[in-house]
Amino acid sequence: MTRERLYLYDTTLRDGQQTQGVQFSTPEKLQITEMLDRLGVDYIEGGWPGANPTDSAFFAEAPETKAKMTAFGMTKRAGRSAANDDVLAAVVNAGTGTVCLVGKTHDFHVTTALGIGLDDNVENIQASLSHLVENKREAIFDAEHFFDGYKANPDYALRCLKAAQQAGARWIVLCDTNGGTLPTEIFRIVTEVIEAGIAGEILGIHTHNDTANAVAGSLAAVDAGARQIQGTLNGLGERCGNANLVTLIPTLMLKEPYRSRYDIGVTPEALTALTQVSRQLDDILNRVPTKQAPFVGASAFAHKAGLHASAILKDPTTYEHIDPALVGNERVIPMSNQAGQSNLRRRLADAGIRVEQGDPALARMLDEVKEREARGYTYDSAQASFEVLARQVLGDMPEFFEVKRYRVTVERRKNKYNKMVSLSEAVVVVKVDGEKRLSVSESLDEAGSDRGPVNALSTALAKDLGQYQEAIADMRLVDFKVRITQGGTEAVTRVIIDSEDGAGRRWSTVGVSPNIVDASFEALLDAINWKLLRETRAAKAPAE
Amino acid sequence: MTRERLYLYDTTLRDGQQTQGVQFSTPEKLQITEMLDRLGVDYIEGGWPGANPTDSAFFAEAPETKAKMTAFGMTKRAGRSAANDDVLAAVVNAGTGTVCLVGKTHDFHVTTALGIGLDDNVENIQASLSHLVENKREAIFDAEHFFDGYKANPDYALRCLKAAQQAGARWIVLCDTNGGTLPTEIFRIVTEVIEAGIAGEILGIHTHNDTANAVAGSLAAVDAGARQIQGTLNGLGERCGNANLVTLIPTLMLKEPYRSRYDIGVTPEALTALTQVSRQLDDILNRVPTKQAPFVGASAFAHKAGLHASAILKDPTTYEHIDPALVGNERVIPMSNQAGQSNLRRRLADAGIRVEQGDPALARMLDEVKEREARGYTYDSAQASFEVLARQVLGDMPEFFEVKRYRVTVERRKNKYNKMVSLSEAVVVVKVDGEKRLSVSESLDEAGSDRGPVNALSTALAKDLGQYQEAIADMRLVDFKVRITQGGTEAVTRVIIDSEDGAGRRWSTVGVSPNIVDASFEALLDAINWKLLRETRAAKAPAE
Repeated sequence: MTRERLYLYDTTLRDGQQTQGVQFSTPEKLQITEMLDRLGVDYIEGGWPGANPTDSAFFAEAPETKAKMTAFGMTKRAGRSAANDDVLAAVVNAGTGTVCLVGKTHDFHVTTALGIGLDDNVENIQASLSHLVENKREAIFDAEHFFDGYKANPDYALRCLKAAQQAGARWIVLCDTNGGTLPTEIFRIVTEVIEAGIAGEILGIHTHNDTANAVAGSLAAVDAGARQIQGTLNGLGERCGNANLVTLIPTLMLKEPYRSRYDIGVTPEALTALTQVSRQLDDILNRVPTKQAPFVGASAFAHKAGLHASAILKDPTTYEHIDPALVGNERVIPMSNQAGQSNLRRRLADAGIRVEQGDPALARMLDEVKEREARGYTYDSAQASFEVLARQVLGDMPEFFEVKRYRVTVERRKNKYNKMVSLSEAVVVVKVDGEKRLSVSESLDEAGSDRGPVNALSTALAKDLGQYQEAIADMRLVDFKVRITQGGTEAVTRVIIDSEDGAGRRWSTVGVSPNIVDASFEALLDAINWKLLRETRAAKAPAE
Repeated sequence: MTRERLYLYDTTLRDGQQTQGVQFSTPEKLQITEMLDRLGVDYIEGGWPGANPTDSAFFAEAPETKAKMTAFGMTKRAGRSAANDDVLAAVVNAGTGTVCLVGKTHDFHVTTALGIGLDDNVENIQASLSHLVENKREAIFDAEHFFDGYKANPDYALRCLKAAQQAGARWIVLCDTNGGTLPTEIFRIVTEVIEAGIAGEILGIHTHNDTANAVAGSLAAVDAGARQIQGTLNGLGERCGNANLVTLIPTLMLKEPYRSRYDIGVTPEALTALTQVSRQLDDILNRVPTKQAPFVGASAFAHKAGLHASAILKDPTTYEHIDPALVGNERVIPMSNQAGQSNLRRRLADAGIRVEQGDPALARMLDEVKEREARGYTYDSAQASFEVLARQVLGDMPEFFEVKRYRVTVERRKNKYNKMVSLSEAVVVVKVDGEKRLSVSESLDEAGSDRGPVNALSTALAKDLGQYQEAIADMRLVDFKVRITQGGTEAVTRVIIDSEDGAGRRWSTVGVSPNIVDASFEALLDAINWKLLRETRAAKAPAE
């Protein structure tokens, strides 16, 4: 079978921005463009020139890309010519080689939402797409509500597509705008559209995730013959989101029958950066990455069940549908009270700790983990705390420093403007290399506002650690999660802290106490100890 | 066409617990069981009796349910009889009417993971299922790795299924354990299994979401003839999760062709509680609900694009695939506060506050609520804080007392036994009836252990409120929830406090701040003010 090319059309910057709470700045749009171009998509839809200042500014500064930069707009309005429609003019004047125009194909929308005649709408499509072709643009027609329209009035919906086809559109994109069409129906309708004379080579698919079927619907359209897929990074988009390209790309490249039949513009090497691309976008949006995300989530290759974990030790293909390294992700064998010794050994091996099978330390460690989990700890996600604990049980954890005492104070009172303000202050006393060091810190952000006691403690603790100071200088606290849980018979506070350093490492630690400040301090200590472990071992390595 | 019955099998309590970071307590399992039973699933898989203390405790206390309570376990091991396998015995002895046993059907797993002969495995399946039938249990066979097994060695995989069938299994569940099988392949293989002589009426489907196709895969199996669907609430589960019943249930009930062809055990009335069920589970897990979740997410019917929002005003079906009320969700149209005001009046009426339609205070209040929600507040559950806020906006909230300042200190150091202990102390200065009152309190439980800064503050604040002291004497803090959330551009802490009094009232209040102590203090203040409102109005009432 000859391989065919599928084209990826990214709309993160346009439809992705319809996500509730998402509003990209122009620099962010430029950054995402660069990410998409490195990844290898074929089209980057940059926005709607003229619709808002950010999109206009973006097109004014749009960088050179391998991908085809695309401006989005709508077909001309009724009662004026394409050349005289100022909204359309702003889109064409953005100067991109490719232009995508959305238009109606559902009779109900033409009469209800636009309030114009059915023939007028067909004429608008034809004239607008012709206008693009006359202006030497690669023309794309986005057929809004196509599937609902086809179900209501197939003749009219097809007539709209044919108008775009006759006008010379390179692509006709079938949109499931409301997200309610199921994959089998998409397959049937795309098949019928091709039978009606519109070649699969010019058909695209645009789905939404309102029934969790956006990926399946896109694949169904490809199965039926469509050759362009529209989607967004991390499935951003209006309501429940668009088809997630981060899921579709590895599915097309790694899974049958797609792997054997189709080529896309993403190379296997670019694919190994997929996890990073996904997390970088979350970083830009200041979102916590979705752990359960297919392929790229932190849990996507996490094996918690005891039976799974022991089989994975024998052969990873027993419980993995692909090798996580292909998408730049990692296997995780979390600790939990369902885990057995084999799980534990695997976890230890991941942390670079070798313990022989049958070593009595394993049983001690498992008991310690179970006893702590009963008190409210969890080591599923707090892998750095697990490593610190394991090394303590094995007698292999250096005491870099000792905390003698700390004190944190939160005070709330009126300031000189008679406004209530709070101030947090922390004092930490540590002993490093036999020497006592006192540090004190306030907790203020750049605007002079109080960030609270945990922040103050973290700053004071990291202020003076003597010879270790340099090793922790690039470390920062990136997330902080609190939950009240059951520790034995009483409620305790569990704090999980995520830290990051300049080398791009990210690690999680846990602390538990009835006192939230204590719990946080415990997690902070583990975070610093883990970082020191990495830094001091790395420094020693060449000499070993 | 005659309608057929589809059966829903929930495994939230078993496979759902394989989610990284999820560990249900026995009371939580009981609460979820009640939720599932009200929803109307057919089977509730409660866990693996004997595998861990929580699951064993759950089955010991398992409540009466309309759904069939099911114990999960594995087929007997080789080299012993079903009656003499202690692991199997623990499962059968849980005393449930239905038992589900997982077994291998992939030759590679039999030889690699189990390390036994292919015939031995078939014999284990046959003997284990027969053992269930002999013990008058409804027997379910969970065919692990069935799809991968069938692709590798169809004859062997089918032989395993037939062993279960001949032993009298009511259901044979085809599991895509690694989550890598795409929907079209699931459709083909289920079709072939039925052609091989295993009736669709005894076939179930169990998918995982590793390619975001768990829902589509389940639907494909139903299309091919399977009649039982396994899944979890909110798609919890190992790695990327199981098929999400919260998505599947409305899809089966509301979307064609399923709506016309099949019945399930969920009533249209129970369906209207679906959004609540989903969020209640997130509450139990202390997770932020996924906004983009199909059907039940807060964004699932949010119309951000300007074109969409204006069309929605003309006719909601223009941009909605179903009516959100059918699943208990709501339409969200930013910019339109028409719906907002009638909502608001309903909530005020709930709090006993009457405001006439069109009163300008409504618009002011809506602005205030929106502005606070943007800063991280939530009034969905914190109804007492909502009432306090509403009365403040209306100028109807007495100032019972004024907090001049407070200070809380947490100190951690060695005690006289050389053990690290912490101590929290709070000072609160209030003005009541023109008189300044200073209170100080430590935070120690009966055993002399520190309970943390929030507890110390709460005790100090409630220590001396002059004439109001008696009114708050019977009040106590019963729950305390902390969540890190987004407040504008930065992370803030949201604290929700549940309080209770001697009259059996229970009320919730909220506080938000970057400083967790401040946020807690704000929620505490609201709690006391609400209680004083109730007490002083009640005292006045007879005289009015």
